[in-house]
Amino acid sequence: MRYFIHFSYNGTAYHGWQIQPNGITVQEELSRAVSILLKQDITVVGAGRTDAGVHARRMVGHFDAEDNNLDTSNIRYKLNKMLPRDISVEKVEPVPSDMHARFSAKSRTYHYYIHTHKDPFLDMRSWYITFPLDIEHMNEAARLLLGEQDFTSFSKTGTDTKTNLCNITEAFWAPSAPSSQLPALSTEWCFTISANRFLRNMVRAIVGTLVEVGRGRITLEELRRIIDDKNRCRAGESVPAHGLYLWDVKY
Amino acid sequence: MRYFIHFSYNGTAYHGWQIQPNGITVQEELSRAVSILLKQDITVVGAGRTDAGVHARRMVGHFDAEDNNLDTSNIRYKLNKMLPRDISVEKVEPVPSDMHARFSAKSRTYHYYIHTHKDPFLDMRSWYITFPLDIEHMNEAARLLLGEQDFTSFSKTGTDTKTNLCNITEAFWAPSAPSSQLPALSTEWCFTISANRFLRNMVRAIVGTLVEVGRGRITLEELRRIIDDKNRCRAGESVPAHGLYLWDVKY
Repeated sequence: MRYFIHFSYNGTAYHGWQIQPNGITVQEELSRAVSILLKQDITVVGAGRTDAGVHARRMVGHFDAEDNNLDTSNIRYKLNKMLPRDISVEKVEPVPSDMHARFSAKSRTYHYYIHTHKDPFLDMRSWYITFPLDIEHMNEAARLLLGEQDFTSFSKTGTDTKTNLCNITEAFWAPSAPSSQLPALSTEWCFTISANRFLRNMVRAIVGTLVEVGRGRITLEELRRIIDDKNRCRAGESVPAHGLYLWDVKY
Repeated sequence: MRYFIHFSYNGTAYHGWQIQPNGITVQEELSRAVSILLKQDITVVGAGRTDAGVHARRMVGHFDAEDNNLDTSNIRYKLNKMLPRDISVEKVEPVPSDMHARFSAKSRTYHYYIHTHKDPFLDMRSWYITFPLDIEHMNEAARLLLGEQDFTSFSKTGTDTKTNLCNITEAFWAPSAPSSQLPALSTEWCFTISANRFLRNMVRAIVGTLVEVGRGRITLEELRRIIDDKNRCRAGESVPAHGLYLWDVKY
């Protein structure tokens, strides 16, 4: 029986999502907890990877359990007791056996946060910058990214994907109102981007390039050429991981 | 020349505000930075103490500089460069020489945050509880704290204050709307309390006692008796430091 698991994590302490030999990952923590609980050797398959330090507000994974009648709300409760404080399970639910956390996903949304005022409560959760940005200009640039295009210019070189075509359905910057909930002193900007798929490192490379536009260092015409060139060296540098959140996955 | 300095800090990494031999404190970090910058041996005097792990959204301190014509905005800029990421300076301003960060303060406000849904992004910033609370009842209890009263029942024993009288001007629980700024999945409660002065450990002992009221373990009549008894053993246990924020100091 296949189950989906919806969860969130603060990526600060992890070497990303995917199990690897050199550090603790979220996939490892989650798979271990599920394995212990179900007394079965389980590897949770994720909707995608997140790099070291990247957060997830909503990540989805699937696993196959021998028991086809799990008490999902009890499983959720116990997993939250077992898992560290920086990983939280929102929901566990049975799904048809042909549903796949990665291949069945229709779209993914990421958020990237920037703040421009030193704030002790945003450390490791948002990128602190000390230069001004022309957000309107960055939004004009973001519109050039929309639609199905080849995003080789914004992907990590040396990856083995068959195609670099992605269909970006939204990409925009918007102000984030100061939180009423916990102290945050900053004026904040949030970049929202949704697509059917993302290449490795793509969001951080896009944000880095848009920030260059916002600083007046790359024009809209140059951005158009950067996309068309399909050459990673032309785009802006990747921005830090800690401002990035996998925000939602839709099926 | 006397200056006020307004600043905030995430208390997670510190052994509280006050300089002590056994650990790094905020007062130590701030005083060192100011001393280096002004080439003078300076100890910043704070508006009050915060215990280990307690945060400050707005703390105020004073120091005396030999230079009576400091470029305060430049000082602020440089201090923010020198200080670690979890301490931020908001403002530096000259004040009359009889102004004292602690003794001139008219009132202090604290916030205490509670959340009831496991949230990776509230870890070490809000107290996570797994039992339900009757907030309405807690607000009735909070009203019993208002006015000038002897708060010995909620103070750390063995402190050497002359009087335990405090005048509480506001004390209430309110829901915190989910943050639009950074991911926070929780329903949250925030306790706001203001007074002319607070005894050591007082806010955390009060919150612990109100939580007992909210769980139906202490009645309003019992709370009345706890206050009148002036006996620390009768009140509820102190709640964890990481949900507490010094929110404001007024002069």
